[in-house]
Amino acid sequence: MRDVAIIGVGITNCGEIWEKSMRDMFVEAGLAAIDDASVDHIDSMYVGCMSGGLFVGQEHIGPLMADYLGQAPIPATRVESACASGGAALRCGYLDVASGASDVVLVGGVEKMNDVSGDDATYALATASDQEWEAFNGVTFPGLYAMMAVAHMHKYGTTPEQLAAVAVKNHDNGSLNPVAQFPMKITVEGVLNSVLVADPLHILDCSPVTDGAAAVILCPADMAAKLGGKTPVKIIGSGHATDTIALHSRADMTTLNAVTKSAGKAYEMSGKGPKDIDVCEVHDCFTIAEIIVSEDLGFFEKGKGGAAVEAGDTRIGGKIPLNTSGGLKSKGHPVGASGVAQAVEIVKQLRGEADKRQVKGAKVGMTQNMGGTGASSVVHVMEVM
Amino acid sequence: MRDVAIIGVGITNCGEIWEKSMRDMFVEAGLAAIDDASVDHIDSMYVGCMSGGLFVGQEHIGPLMADYLGQAPIPATRVESACASGGAALRCGYLDVASGASDVVLVGGVEKMNDVSGDDATYALATASDQEWEAFNGVTFPGLYAMMAVAHMHKYGTTPEQLAAVAVKNHDNGSLNPVAQFPMKITVEGVLNSVLVADPLHILDCSPVTDGAAAVILCPADMAAKLGGKTPVKIIGSGHATDTIALHSRADMTTLNAVTKSAGKAYEMSGKGPKDIDVCEVHDCFTIAEIIVSEDLGFFEKGKGGAAVEAGDTRIGGKIPLNTSGGLKSKGHPVGASGVAQAVEIVKQLRGEADKRQVKGAKVGMTQNMGGTGASSVVHVMEVM
Repeated sequence: MRDVAIIGVGITNCGEIWEKSMRDMFVEAGLAAIDDASVDHIDSMYVGCMSGGLFVGQEHIGPLMADYLGQAPIPATRVESACASGGAALRCGYLDVASGASDVVLVGGVEKMNDVSGDDATYALATASDQEWEAFNGVTFPGLYAMMAVAHMHKYGTTPEQLAAVAVKNHDNGSLNPVAQFPMKITVEGVLNSVLVADPLHILDCSPVTDGAAAVILCPADMAAKLGGKTPVKIIGSGHATDTIALHSRADMTTLNAVTKSAGKAYEMSGKGPKDIDVCEVHDCFTIAEIIVSEDLGFFEKGKGGAAVEAGDTRIGGKIPLNTSGGLKSKGHPVGASGVAQAVEIVKQLRGEADKRQVKGAKVGMTQNMGGTGASSVVHVMEVM
Repeated sequence: MRDVAIIGVGITNCGEIWEKSMRDMFVEAGLAAIDDASVDHIDSMYVGCMSGGLFVGQEHIGPLMADYLGQAPIPATRVESACASGGAALRCGYLDVASGASDVVLVGGVEKMNDVSGDDATYALATASDQEWEAFNGVTFPGLYAMMAVAHMHKYGTTPEQLAAVAVKNHDNGSLNPVAQFPMKITVEGVLNSVLVADPLHILDCSPVTDGAAAVILCPADMAAKLGGKTPVKIIGSGHATDTIALHSRADMTTLNAVTKSAGKAYEMSGKGPKDIDVCEVHDCFTIAEIIVSEDLGFFEKGKGGAAVEAGDTRIGGKIPLNTSGGLKSKGHPVGASGVAQAVEIVKQLRGEADKRQVKGAKVGMTQNMGGTGASSVVHVMEVM
């Protein structure tokens, strides 16, 4: 397998982007990444998108985006793994370059979620769970993650204040990110006094419904070294794993097997461990998700994730800064794009281009992107070249 | 890149499968392929599916299928390229093995299309076209292919009888395939007297709405040689290309650039040309599609595809047998599965297991799978090992 590097990144504003269509947003992010990489051609494309069909009535998204990006007739493939679609697309692009089939690959992600009603968005998102056994019976994603939160609180003593601390930290980071959907700072009291969606999760424990797109350009590491563009970032570990799609099929709701397995593979391949990671974007679709994932990635002892965030260990300047971008919570969660947006943030951090949210001296970064209640997880470890 | 072989295949009955869900059908095909390959483990999975969201309200299809196939926590990725989803999934699986990341890969495809109304199925299928410029304005797929047919008739003198001859030949082949949805034989007169859907296409010029699933098992060619199972079939060429998604953006509606480009790459990689192919499955979603594709693959001079089918050149025993399975027209068209089902047929032909529809002495086969009106096309050339 050839070594692979990221040589360009691009991202749109995240939020309610009424003036742009799904294809407009993808093209904006794609062109930004191509410009950032200073490449004159692309050999193939992968597009992460969760549900073009339900959100905007459009499938066949790979060729659509290649066409509008002016790249047809190159191969273009849409990849879906619910909210981990972007991470899964990144892995497909990585394998394409690693195999030798393509040299310059664009991996993008996009979701246009605000063109349907709130009810329809809730239905579309619920297709990431087991429809026959979960969603059709009425449970929604806040409900599923609330069950995980209650189990974690019961087993480990995690508190509502600790959940709220995740949101507060991510909004603090998001306030430093110009593309964030909700850059306002919030407080623990504010979270606890916000509307209860599914006990114990308040609305400020939940990531928003977001329009947005992100893209990265990959090429072989040796080519990246010769191109002489911006500092390349090498993908040194790639792990992808799955779990039962239904929450009720799992032995333990307080840990996510797909996260543990995907991280284990990425760590093994990279020769790095949790202690070597300088900055990490994790899948904080709900505050409890960030706590569980921070434990399952090995950053904290099992059950201590809540105390860690409360102690400031996951802040910029802390032991392991998580979600410097503001995460899905504050930056926003355009589901199919989120995994690619994570890679954009880590590349900026490792290049030293993260402005006020820069983690000083960051050399090794990681992304962890998750689908549903963790039925899929994709982890990439990256190192500055 | 490592050489890759197909070592196992499986397929369900195609048709209105009321008693089985999407996941049931996928598991049936997947287990059949695993059994056929006699492998004791799988390293990763790809699932072709066009619109789980619109057809059955289920996305996150990769981990769902890995879970129900008993394969979690292996990586499992859903791939979408409209009706070319299966072919695109096969290419992703091919690259995964070729890269060295995985050894044993299951590539499956599935679609459950009959659980929604006819109107809803028509809407779901139209998401393979450009929704903003085509489908939302009222054009459906029979309408789009009818425009291509009219253009081809105008430019090359192709006749309604020649279109009908494609359907007649494919139903003759389908009558020999035990999994075919419509195995009855039909006549040219029968096609011409059937209901007109979009002039000049009658209902018997159109492929049906189908439930079904198919799967193949891939591994490195050198491993296949050592396994000692059924005769392995090597993938010697893989080509994938795109075109404008909207028909009106193209300079010529009588040729499909993505087909020409994807075939060109697959021929170049394999060192084979049209004359070397003994048997081929092509994307006959409508009769005109098979005629255009048979020309664009280089089997016949441009404009002579209609005359060729009428002369029997594409029948079993003819110059180049096309769609020995019965094709999408008679075997059925479970859209996300069709590209994988094509590979199942070619492997059976190259192994000499195609029973009454066997092409004698077939050593080199090809599959051509297409999305929308040809905005994506995936071609694989295969050779018996």
